Amino acid sequence: MNPGDRVRVERADRTYEGVLLPSSTEAHLVVKLEGGYNVGVDRDDAAVDVLEEGVHEIESAQDAEESGSDSDSEVEFDDDLPTISLISTGGTIASTVDYRTGAVTAQFDAEDVLRAVPDLAGRANYRGRVVTNILSENMTPEVWQDLAQAVYEEIEAGADGVVVMHGTDTMQYSASALSFMLETPVPVVFTGSQRSADRPSSDNVMNAVSAVEAAKSDCAEVLVCMHASESDDDCALHRGTRVRKNHTSRRDAFETVGAEPLGTVEYDSLDVTFHREHRERGETDLAIDPALESDVELVKFTPGMDPAFLDVAEGSAGLILEGTGLGHVHTDLIPKIEELVADGTTVVMTSQCLEGRVCDRVYDTGRDLLEAGVIEGEDTLPGTAKVKLMWALANADAVEETMQTSIAGEIQRRSTPWT
Amino acid sequence: MNPGDRVRVERADRTYEGVLLPSSTEAHLVVKLEGGYNVGVDRDDAAVDVLEEGVHEIESAQDAEESGSDSDSEVEFDDDLPTISLISTGGTIASTVDYRTGAVTAQFDAEDVLRAVPDLAGRANYRGRVVTNILSENMTPEVWQDLAQAVYEEIEAGADGVVVMHGTDTMQYSASALSFMLETPVPVVFTGSQRSADRPSSDNVMNAVSAVEAAKSDCAEVLVCMHASESDDDCALHRGTRVRKNHTSRRDAFETVGAEPLGTVEYDSLDVTFHREHRERGETDLAIDPALESDVELVKFTPGMDPAFLDVAEGSAGLILEGTGLGHVHTDLIPKIEELVADGTTVVMTSQCLEGRVCDRVYDTGRDLLEAGVIEGEDTLPGTAKVKLMWALANADAVEETMQTSIAGEIQRRSTPWT
Repeated sequence: MNPGDRVRVERADRTYEGVLLPSSTEAHLVVKLEGGYNVGVDRDDAAVDVLEEGVHEIESAQDAEESGSDSDSEVEFDDDLPTISLISTGGTIASTVDYRTGAVTAQFDAEDVLRAVPDLAGRANYRGRVVTNILSENMTPEVWQDLAQAVYEEIEAGADGVVVMHGTDTMQYSASALSFMLETPVPVVFTGSQRSADRPSSDNVMNAVSAVEAAKSDCAEVLVCMHASESDDDCALHRGTRVRKNHTSRRDAFETVGAEPLGTVEYDSLDVTFHREHRERGETDLAIDPALESDVELVKFTPGMDPAFLDVAEGSAGLILEGTGLGHVHTDLIPKIEELVADGTTVVMTSQCLEGRVCDRVYDTGRDLLEAGVIEGEDTLPGTAKVKLMWALANADAVEETMQTSIAGEIQRRSTPWT
Repeated sequence: MNPGDRVRVERADRTYEGVLLPSSTEAHLVVKLEGGYNVGVDRDDAAVDVLEEGVHEIESAQDAEESGSDSDSEVEFDDDLPTISLISTGGTIASTVDYRTGAVTAQFDAEDVLRAVPDLAGRANYRGRVVTNILSENMTPEVWQDLAQAVYEEIEAGADGVVVMHGTDTMQYSASALSFMLETPVPVVFTGSQRSADRPSSDNVMNAVSAVEAAKSDCAEVLVCMHASESDDDCALHRGTRVRKNHTSRRDAFETVGAEPLGTVEYDSLDVTFHREHRERGETDLAIDPALESDVELVKFTPGMDPAFLDVAEGSAGLILEGTGLGHVHTDLIPKIEELVADGTTVVMTSQCLEGRVCDRVYDTGRDLLEAGVIEGEDTLPGTAKVKLMWALANADAVEETMQTSIAGEIQRRSTPWT
């Protein structure tokens, strides 16, 4: 049994068929499934049949390292093209690119990229880097920090733009995290795929190509590039702090909440257009503030919630409340919230409406919350507010002021008058 | 100091000015503020100035009772018009109607209704009833039960339709609750107001009139009737289990998730049109199943969540998870979920995407969740799923099957193919 063999692995009640990857360890087999996903299987109690030997040629990690520099690559460096760094974190889209090397810590080179997505040829010089290889529901604040560091290093090494390949489940949280952690003079574009490469409806090629074009653009922000509609006409470019996955399965699941997307990549022409004000390439110097306070929770209030639920936040550094309407919870919860604040927990109110601004000055419940020491999160999305509070508690002197000031476009100017 | 006097009340750091209401008790003063809201102030330590005596004529509870029957009302019963029952629970819209009586348990009559909203004249014979008078963030499962009982009694007494006036914060939860608790042969239409009656942009009259017209229609479902756009053209009629307040302040905050609204009330003509299949007037007999299991919590998963967070559900009858994407949480949470299920907690997965169906058969994380005993909530909205699980645990023999079967339109037919 060798990497590259097609195998059938049986363990407990499950059977997996796919290609054995070199990232297998003494404890785990890693198998690339038909759909392009990797699965890790405990070697103990696993029964393995080799169905066909050497169906995929797989470089050893050593070979990859030896041939990994651009100078050895078959793909020539083109002085007239910008250099785009592709960073892989896992998920459906990365599975297209990391198919060949499989390893979770390997570098990959321009040749690997072009073999995986031939449509990328001629658009840029490519650098490749793998930060992790996980389904994005398993993303953690620690990986956000590794990812921010990797993006920082790539830009420092001269990348003219960065594309981050990421699972779609938590892409909005990671894009928010990098929006706060990094000041970037070049575009940092997250992209992913809602359908794997083996499906006729896969969106991975169009999203990857569009993301590369966006990474070459003049918008020096953290963006998310995904299908704008169910057709293959355009990709939308969303600001990382305002984007939300609003559908479980559609290719155009990602939307900017409360505004039009920042920009569009037309797939036919690959023209990149921006519709609203944004930070320009080179406007800021590269900087990184990756510290995070990990002890922050988010609680969504619903009617009938037991006030004891809020005990989860006892002793926590921060708590995001996802209230109703303008930012309310049942009055019975307020004494507990007051206690949390008194004990040093920073409590920020957001709204489960998602669109519109929190305003706790209109109704009594809101005024009582303000008196209890709750900070209004303006119109920051609840998930973004959680990430921001983690960042603010570790980096800001004045946390309340920071939560009410737009750092990375997470707070929008009021779009509709209140009366 | 008497009910009807304009007063200034100072307590702690707050000052309230308004009309003293007869619902004041020995312990609390109840003051109707300028905006139409009632505020309760502890009599202890409160300083009260009477600014002007008897600015509002207020009936005593006894007078109200004596003159409360329709036969004594100045408004004549019209045999050619249907009878609509207006039930008040509080919130911005109710404050228009309950201004005169103020009391929280009083009946109000057709005269009161027409004095508050003259535009309602000539559309129906009205019955009025107050279930409670609270801002809707303070709504509880117990009040849902009282409300269901009141609606049941009104229909049993011959109402051709029911309008429920409700605060907008938790209207979707209450509408869901009544959708599951009641089988109704007539329309039950929730309405509310995003702007109070004293604002030029108030939506209360148009919403109330449209709701009455919807209550006269042939759609025997629990509906929500609110502005369809920021203009005063149409109200939308949303199915109670699929509606969501998607903006903190806009008049058209309410939307049907994942579909067009069920119907429209054109304000000019007051024509009521339905765009999709619905239950017809008289199709079902009146029935009520108001039992609820109150020990159900909702947890929204976000990256970085401490697995210990799930301790809040220990010993609970039910838990709704609001996962990412197709219905995922971090793999580290799965052992805890498995324990909860083993200990008898019913765990149902929904998606924070809001639109689209949960499908835990696609990825390993999902399959692990299914193996742990998690029930897929289909495309039921998370908030609706919580209410439904409270109802299912108290009323259904087969809870899993019930959660995966549409009882009141909460599960939609698949609208987009998965591949």
